[in-house]
Amino acid sequence: MGSRPPVRQEEQMVYLTRDELQRMMEAVSINAIMEYKRRMVTPAIQEPVRKQRDIRTKFWSVEGHSINGFTPDAVACGGEWGESGRVVFRCSVLKIWDLGFVVLDGFELLSGGEILRMAINLRNDRNRRPLQTFRAYNVAHRGSNGELPEETSAAYMRAIEEGADFIESDVLASKDGVLICFHDVNLDDTTDIANHTEFSDRKRTYEVQGANITGYFTVDFTLEELKSLRVKQRYSFRDQQYNGKFSIITFEEFISIALDAPRVVGIYPEIKNPVFINQHVKWSKGKKFEDIFVETLKKYGYEGSYLSKKWLKQPAFIQSFAPTSLTYISNLTDLPKIFLIDDTTIPTQDTNQSFREITSDHYLDYIKEYVVGIGPWKDNLVTASNNYLQTPTDLVARAHAHNLQVHPYTFRNENQFLHFNFSQDPYNEYDYWINKIGVDGLFTDFTGSLHHYQEWTSPFSSGEKDAYNLLDKIVAMISKFKHS
Amino acid sequence: MGSRPPVRQEEQMVYLTRDELQRMMEAVSINAIMEYKRRMVTPAIQEPVRKQRDIRTKFWSVEGHSINGFTPDAVACGGEWGESGRVVFRCSVLKIWDLGFVVLDGFELLSGGEILRMAINLRNDRNRRPLQTFRAYNVAHRGSNGELPEETSAAYMRAIEEGADFIESDVLASKDGVLICFHDVNLDDTTDIANHTEFSDRKRTYEVQGANITGYFTVDFTLEELKSLRVKQRYSFRDQQYNGKFSIITFEEFISIALDAPRVVGIYPEIKNPVFINQHVKWSKGKKFEDIFVETLKKYGYEGSYLSKKWLKQPAFIQSFAPTSLTYISNLTDLPKIFLIDDTTIPTQDTNQSFREITSDHYLDYIKEYVVGIGPWKDNLVTASNNYLQTPTDLVARAHAHNLQVHPYTFRNENQFLHFNFSQDPYNEYDYWINKIGVDGLFTDFTGSLHHYQEWTSPFSSGEKDAYNLLDKIVAMISKFKHS
Repeated sequence: MGSRPPVRQEEQMVYLTRDELQRMMEAVSINAIMEYKRRMVTPAIQEPVRKQRDIRTKFWSVEGHSINGFTPDAVACGGEWGESGRVVFRCSVLKIWDLGFVVLDGFELLSGGEILRMAINLRNDRNRRPLQTFRAYNVAHRGSNGELPEETSAAYMRAIEEGADFIESDVLASKDGVLICFHDVNLDDTTDIANHTEFSDRKRTYEVQGANITGYFTVDFTLEELKSLRVKQRYSFRDQQYNGKFSIITFEEFISIALDAPRVVGIYPEIKNPVFINQHVKWSKGKKFEDIFVETLKKYGYEGSYLSKKWLKQPAFIQSFAPTSLTYISNLTDLPKIFLIDDTTIPTQDTNQSFREITSDHYLDYIKEYVVGIGPWKDNLVTASNNYLQTPTDLVARAHAHNLQVHPYTFRNENQFLHFNFSQDPYNEYDYWINKIGVDGLFTDFTGSLHHYQEWTSPFSSGEKDAYNLLDKIVAMISKFKHS
Repeated sequence: MGSRPPVRQEEQMVYLTRDELQRMMEAVSINAIMEYKRRMVTPAIQEPVRKQRDIRTKFWSVEGHSINGFTPDAVACGGEWGESGRVVFRCSVLKIWDLGFVVLDGFELLSGGEILRMAINLRNDRNRRPLQTFRAYNVAHRGSNGELPEETSAAYMRAIEEGADFIESDVLASKDGVLICFHDVNLDDTTDIANHTEFSDRKRTYEVQGANITGYFTVDFTLEELKSLRVKQRYSFRDQQYNGKFSIITFEEFISIALDAPRVVGIYPEIKNPVFINQHVKWSKGKKFEDIFVETLKKYGYEGSYLSKKWLKQPAFIQSFAPTSLTYISNLTDLPKIFLIDDTTIPTQDTNQSFREITSDHYLDYIKEYVVGIGPWKDNLVTASNNYLQTPTDLVARAHAHNLQVHPYTFRNENQFLHFNFSQDPYNEYDYWINKIGVDGLFTDFTGSLHHYQEWTSPFSSGEKDAYNLLDKIVAMISKFKHS
């Protein structure tokens, strides 16, 4: 980025009087609300994301202030260095709807003393909409990776916009020990590493969980080098237009996306391949991957047991396939943990235990002291034959009997992932798992679809509910006077 | 069927006293209601359908009669000759839900004087739930062909169960002039004709709409021969387990499925390839394909203009790509007609007019005298680029300005048919076409999905609506006494 000075956020933050805020608000028209929601939201999130190094996007609660008779729930503001070398300042007024939020309108202003004064500092965490806890959790698997390249800021921001309860991430490490959000231990399948000839000598073959893998490994690249790569869509049948547009993000950047959300959104990070990472990356003072992972969570205020007051303010689940990591971490934090369970043929990566062993009543008795739930592959909870689901196994019932939650993975809209029971309709699959099987959380590539399903069939808040409440009150009042 | 005597429906119909009905009802348990809906309904419809020649299935309204405290909306009854040579009689008690109906339980009894007396004759058409007319029509394209082989009785019964407003069919003719429900002029792609060596000498090459096609044509087979074939699923990525189980049905059988539905379900038949059919099939007294088509509709009581009292009792839309057929038919019946519009490169099959010509304001002015709407391919209403929808054309607006409805085809759940705008979610596509484009009806391969979408976002009848109505009444009453 050459000699451009970084934008210091503090420079832009000034307090406005209520009148000044009102005048600014009145400059914003609400014509755009009639525009198609998806078309509007997409460019609004892309622009800041593309220039994410220069820009700091924040959501500011301005509840109670009216724009042309319309009350916004939040204003998103960010400053960046424009082509002219001056600071370009952008604001977007947002309205929170039941189904995510829409951008009402945006305006762009050039820099200057007057303009900087327009920044708003009305953030009010206490008014953020809380995490819903009455229905199964919508866990945005690698963000909204059905639409955008996985584990990028764009995928996570879209997931928040679409109604995720939690944003989910795989945490690995760079050569210089920085925690990053990335699924595979190697960069080959989901980045443009193949085009970076400057790294062609970094190809290696390593043993990962008992198998030799050849490729470019995150642990052989510094964060700065990783940041020069761009992420791409994993599946050929999904939208490729965002390939090459977004960088790998750090675990800290991931956390800050969750904390900056206009409502309470939890995080759901996985300690990914801990045996491999501890083999290849070394931290000072003999610290392990797991130590750095928990230190990072603590640095940002994540603490407290499941459903505690602290937890509800900044909810987090820690997930891992490695029992040793989970038991080790249980000495470092009381944040709730989820024990991931791999396919029936794959032993645990650290303790070499079989699927049969770790799903036994005996083992559930043991692990429930360390974790609040399990995260199995859904096809092992209900096996399929000829692409038809069979009778469910007893694992969900046994987990529930051990007071363990069940968060199966991974739900995907595309019909090649759907069993014929569901008539090529992902909503039928959600209906089955939520209402028939009774799971407590769902890892989905399509947070928007799961959110629609849940809002339509079990709304978080709705006019109908209010009408019923009012009706109940009236009935209660009238019934006192009934003829006896 | 050899020497087996046909089952005469009248033999089975006797009147029951209320007490006798009650005793019969009490024999039926409601345990089965807890079973998963889809699993229950499927075998219940398959069994009678497989033996459709022997069986006559009817829905009998028994509203007001209670089974173990549960009031059924209908009882389905049918008799057939069992393996033993005796009449086997089956009843299923049904409960109509917002989303189709579920089978509560079924029981099977052997024949005999006592048993025949148990048949119920309480059909009461006046109480059937009417056609909804306040939201876009759910047109079950070739039945629920996303799940079952197209245009079979099973596909149509499933569509009715899933909430179709109309069941849609292509009407062709057999060699002996019987109207049948079948899409292609040849049998090759969706039947097991290739396995029927007795017909191997029937292969022909005919000109159909200007192109030569080689194969086995319906017009070279008598109805009896066509009935010996079995239908199969058109698409390889859909469920193949029902291949070889269902026959081609006649137009009259199709009509009787609609008339036997437990609520008012319309029909939406297409006069398919009329030029070709009139070339190859001849009827007595010089009658044309179109004459026989309308005679059949009249025989079953279909008549009346759009939304007339007669039409609402037995709703029907007549569809055709051929303007000449539509204008000819307009002299025979005042049933509403829909003018189908093919892809931009394909001229009309009878008048050889271009897409541009038949979508001009001038032509819409002309055709609106004969039809109530148009049925275009949806990609010609909103064109796509790189699998992204572009700005909509003005055709919907111009059709509406001419007081013409717009019923685009064809909506399919599978992501290979969905534009990326919709995030691999068919419900997003419905949202766009219904709420943004404002179409009046949708041809869908997945009636169940469209019905879910519409029930969730714009319910036909619901507790919420009742609560609101009650609330409105209370408010109206109370407001009279308000302090002024």
